[in-house]
Amino acid sequence: MTQRIAVAIIGAGPAGLLLSQLLHGAGIDCLVLERRSRAHVEGRIRAGVLEQGTVALLERAGVAARLRREGLVHEGFQVALDGELFRIDMRGRTGGAVTVYGQTEVTHDLIEAHLARGAEPVFEAEDVALHGLDGDAPRVTYRRDGTMHEVRCDYVAGCDGYRGVSRASIPQAALRSFERVYPFGWLGILADVPPCDHELIYSNHARGFALASMRSPTRSRYYVQVPLQETLAEWPDERLWDELALRLGPEAAARMVRGPAIEKSIAPLRSFVAEPMRHGRLFLAGDAAHIVPPTGAKGLNLAASDVAMLAEALVARYRDGSEAGLDGYSARALARVWKAERFSWWFTSLTHRFPEMDGFARRMQIAELDYIRGSPAAQQVMAENYVGLPLAPG
Amino acid sequence: MTQRIAVAIIGAGPAGLLLSQLLHGAGIDCLVLERRSRAHVEGRIRAGVLEQGTVALLERAGVAARLRREGLVHEGFQVALDGELFRIDMRGRTGGAVTVYGQTEVTHDLIEAHLARGAEPVFEAEDVALHGLDGDAPRVTYRRDGTMHEVRCDYVAGCDGYRGVSRASIPQAALRSFERVYPFGWLGILADVPPCDHELIYSNHARGFALASMRSPTRSRYYVQVPLQETLAEWPDERLWDELALRLGPEAAARMVRGPAIEKSIAPLRSFVAEPMRHGRLFLAGDAAHIVPPTGAKGLNLAASDVAMLAEALVARYRDGSEAGLDGYSARALARVWKAERFSWWFTSLTHRFPEMDGFARRMQIAELDYIRGSPAAQQVMAENYVGLPLAPG
Repeated sequence: MTQRIAVAIIGAGPAGLLLSQLLHGAGIDCLVLERRSRAHVEGRIRAGVLEQGTVALLERAGVAARLRREGLVHEGFQVALDGELFRIDMRGRTGGAVTVYGQTEVTHDLIEAHLARGAEPVFEAEDVALHGLDGDAPRVTYRRDGTMHEVRCDYVAGCDGYRGVSRASIPQAALRSFERVYPFGWLGILADVPPCDHELIYSNHARGFALASMRSPTRSRYYVQVPLQETLAEWPDERLWDELALRLGPEAAARMVRGPAIEKSIAPLRSFVAEPMRHGRLFLAGDAAHIVPPTGAKGLNLAASDVAMLAEALVARYRDGSEAGLDGYSARALARVWKAERFSWWFTSLTHRFPEMDGFARRMQIAELDYIRGSPAAQQVMAENYVGLPLAPG
Repeated sequence: MTQRIAVAIIGAGPAGLLLSQLLHGAGIDCLVLERRSRAHVEGRIRAGVLEQGTVALLERAGVAARLRREGLVHEGFQVALDGELFRIDMRGRTGGAVTVYGQTEVTHDLIEAHLARGAEPVFEAEDVALHGLDGDAPRVTYRRDGTMHEVRCDYVAGCDGYRGVSRASIPQAALRSFERVYPFGWLGILADVPPCDHELIYSNHARGFALASMRSPTRSRYYVQVPLQETLAEWPDERLWDELALRLGPEAAARMVRGPAIEKSIAPLRSFVAEPMRHGRLFLAGDAAHIVPPTGAKGLNLAASDVAMLAEALVARYRDGSEAGLDGYSARALARVWKAERFSWWFTSLTHRFPEMDGFARRMQIAELDYIRGSPAAQQVMAENYVGLPLAPG
């Protein structure tokens, strides 16, 4: 079976679905292919903090109704140094804010919008393969229910994440990779209990990093930094709650409500960037091109800003015939990606306990947090990165 | 020979001389002991950038007349990334500025002020030793021209630098040290040529750090980062000028005037802090307690802010009998020291090439400089640190 469309989108995560939604809005024909089932895609627990630019983009894509109703607008966040809190006033320092709304909700809303217009993504597409990326007639093949399918298209958007086929289809010699693997992981717990604070708490504690986050007023998400070799078996719920109470400090601990884990997992932390984000007719967006450690919640937001720029470039191409936007996409996207990579690396370095850390390195963390606590300018720097840097002009 | 004074000051560098001058102004009797000759002390080539707080303090000490006449007020500085310049507008971002005036000039003015009031520091004081620091009657002994001298005093101010006798007189168990040694040095050249720019240029170049600085409109001071094992013999003047031209970039190189070195040396870079800055009746100030790498020019300025706080505490002690200031000195001084240590470490890390640096680390530098170039808030952070953070309330 052969199909002819303008843009083939690989991956039905938020990046692929959002791109599809934006292109559809501009009258550009596209198809989303996803290796996994819909249930699997919607079940993935990921980040939950949306930059204001991401919210605006979801609005523009027509999928923000529930987000506007249910999302929690956060005008600040807390930083704890050895249990003592101070606040970064995002609204006061930048005029902006973020919205807490789970990635799984964003994905759900996007899938619903696709179904509503009769454009169901192709889930469980097996053996997806990209062909002819170097020429002007790329093709994507896949197998579904035992049948091979071929999609002929003008462009391929690789939105299939770090382990997806898209980046893997680019010859190694054409890519340069940058990577940093952190010597610890995040042990996360999701529980149906009210959060200990109406805002997030990022904690640097001598025992290691902790984060108090949430998905809703009745669903909390907490994390503690753990050595990479630890297993969930070593972390029964009570031990985890005890550790959180210690690391978040007495003020947060007094308000912390404990409850059974509805999800618990250990995730590694990684910084990764592949350059360029284009190869011939293939354009990478989101995790397919870059990974950030979760400190600062930039992953989903970077995917959204990539998609905003890629959609703009594709729309210009189909409306005006201009390829300038597509030619400039990689450099434009990477300029913002690297700044967010830097922020995520810096925020991780500032708040985590590193195995090789000596007294001097620890004092550097404390001095920097102490400086931030006392400097409106430093708070503004932190806030403007957290609410999200602007896109470069296209 | 035994003498009785209020405060014995060890070291006739800017810290000791400034403290002596401030105490004299408050009618507190003190004596400055210095191991070296006056010519040696005045000949030491050191930093040349004074924070506004340092200038105000020299003013208060009555030694700023020539500084006001000859010092160059700098309202900004330049940062170069691979040869391309952008400016940090200190005046615009903070309302403040720095003054370029060599440390050797500061020392000279302070010595002149001492001589003018007939209070010559004791130069070439050999075998200086501190006694009874734990009790309430400390003594300092030294030998001069073959004669042993004893100074009985209330307090000892240790202003004799990193290798001085003061810190070495504190039992090891009573001190905690923090240290970072950098895997490179600064090769500096002093030449009687006009500077290439009216402001300083801090350059991050793929070949390594460089700095274009000055002492006056006709005397330039330049530095390049070099591996620690290199020697001056490997750096004839022409090679050094060529390297500076490369690292500072075409704009600066076009205006650079070359000339013979009147001084050339390689200095290692070190971060060091000893805690606490007090032991019994001994109070440390300046390099005796902490060292910063020269990036950001904080060394002399930290010595000055230590001295400001120590003088304030001693004056309160002699005027009101209150020891609260002396008891709080170490914590108060260290709060500012650590912030300046952080700034110096950060500025060094941001601009130097490290042997172990991989592609990711290099990209972090580039992304941060790119971010600073575009963010007024980030420029303000850099500027407020450069002009000098305020003293904590006493």
